[in-house]
Amino acid sequence: MTRSRSMICKGCWQHMHVPIPIRGPLSIAARLFGVRISRMNPDLCNICETMFTKVKHRKQIIVPATVLFADLRGYTTLSQSAASGDVTDMLHGFADECAEAIWEREGVVNKFIGDAILAIFNFPIVRPDHVQQAVLAAQDIQRRWTERRERSAQAGGAVIGLGIGIHTGNASIGEIGTAYKDFTIIGPVVNIASRIQGEAMAGEILASREVYTQVAEMFPNSPPRACQLKGIEQPVPVHLLATP
Amino acid sequence: MTRSRSMICKGCWQHMHVPIPIRGPLSIAARLFGVRISRMNPDLCNICETMFTKVKHRKQIIVPATVLFADLRGYTTLSQSAASGDVTDMLHGFADECAEAIWEREGVVNKFIGDAILAIFNFPIVRPDHVQQAVLAAQDIQRRWTERRERSAQAGGAVIGLGIGIHTGNASIGEIGTAYKDFTIIGPVVNIASRIQGEAMAGEILASREVYTQVAEMFPNSPPRACQLKGIEQPVPVHLLATP
Repeated sequence: MTRSRSMICKGCWQHMHVPIPIRGPLSIAARLFGVRISRMNPDLCNICETMFTKVKHRKQIIVPATVLFADLRGYTTLSQSAASGDVTDMLHGFADECAEAIWEREGVVNKFIGDAILAIFNFPIVRPDHVQQAVLAAQDIQRRWTERRERSAQAGGAVIGLGIGIHTGNASIGEIGTAYKDFTIIGPVVNIASRIQGEAMAGEILASREVYTQVAEMFPNSPPRACQLKGIEQPVPVHLLATP
Repeated sequence: MTRSRSMICKGCWQHMHVPIPIRGPLSIAARLFGVRISRMNPDLCNICETMFTKVKHRKQIIVPATVLFADLRGYTTLSQSAASGDVTDMLHGFADECAEAIWEREGVVNKFIGDAILAIFNFPIVRPDHVQQAVLAAQDIQRRWTERRERSAQAGGAVIGLGIGIHTGNASIGEIGTAYKDFTIIGPVVNIASRIQGEAMAGEILASREVYTQVAEMFPNSPPRACQLKGIEQPVPVHLLATP
């Protein structure tokens, strides 16, 4: 499924009501002023990505957001044994499948770190159903990855599974630091999402209770599982979300 | 210590022998073509950061590089209890201190993820002594952070410690994915550096044997410690590097 891309930056439109052309003839003029399509999402421009403070007149804002971490399971082990070209090809595929699934649901791919991806939903593109969108993206990632594994297995290649963790809550988004300015999300939501992801086995999507309560009707048979997450005293209930 | 910044992009100069002005009067003209100072290092331009494939005519290159991970210890626990403004201020300080120390040694701050930083030495700015530079940066980070903790303690604030892990070897640097294009480093070097960092306690710098052998004369009394790292079958010897 490929959908048509926006002609203007959705972030600048939603947050400033300014139509910044990112496709079509007008985008050529914008490009002269340094406007480019964002790497984080092709419906956004780099103003959203790198000029946060100028746009929002603040270094950071606190917004409700859903954070999704996806990580390849057994990557370190595989990278010790498999040919590095095969491993690199697999990572390219991982980045592509994740990005497509996330962009379809108007999330942004904020960071790619080693063999993991960090995605944000509800900023800069605001969607009241960001929790649902993140869950749909997670299912789509698992579905795409399973298909790729099957194709790869037929071709004699080895593709490992991936685990996903999702959490939602208020997070601080903006530029971190005065010297190093980067579009980043911080707060317990990020760390807990990362820890939940660490508990997910290959093929699994684990979600916090805060996520689950908003998508419970999609997953009627998912009782909570108590996880002891590093840095958190009480066990955290997480729910396994099945991929149809 | 603040040193004078380069007038041209050091990466474009080293890799293409093209003087891209990033400061001074000529940089105003360059800015009209979208050239900006890179967020990763103020002596680089965004061509190095976002147009990797165009510059190198390849999606990825394999280069010897040193990877440094720094991570706040106990951040998740602290963020559950402390006021979010205090925690955010601490993260800003963390990013700033790390960036200054890394830039002094010509490394790049590649990613800031939650409460962790990923730095690369030897690309795009090539330095034969990149291992030593990474170790000096790590010591500087710990020194700066200790000073900041002391200032913060005097002011009644709480600042947690940080752990650092360093590894070196050939890594793949470039753009990952065809849809999501991002300047990223991948390979076992990154994952092992991250795992070594996970073993470091607050105030510690842990280095792999590959790093240690190149800086052994700086640390004559650092016997190896065998660490069982996730995903790696054999125990990995790591060395504790003291901060003077």
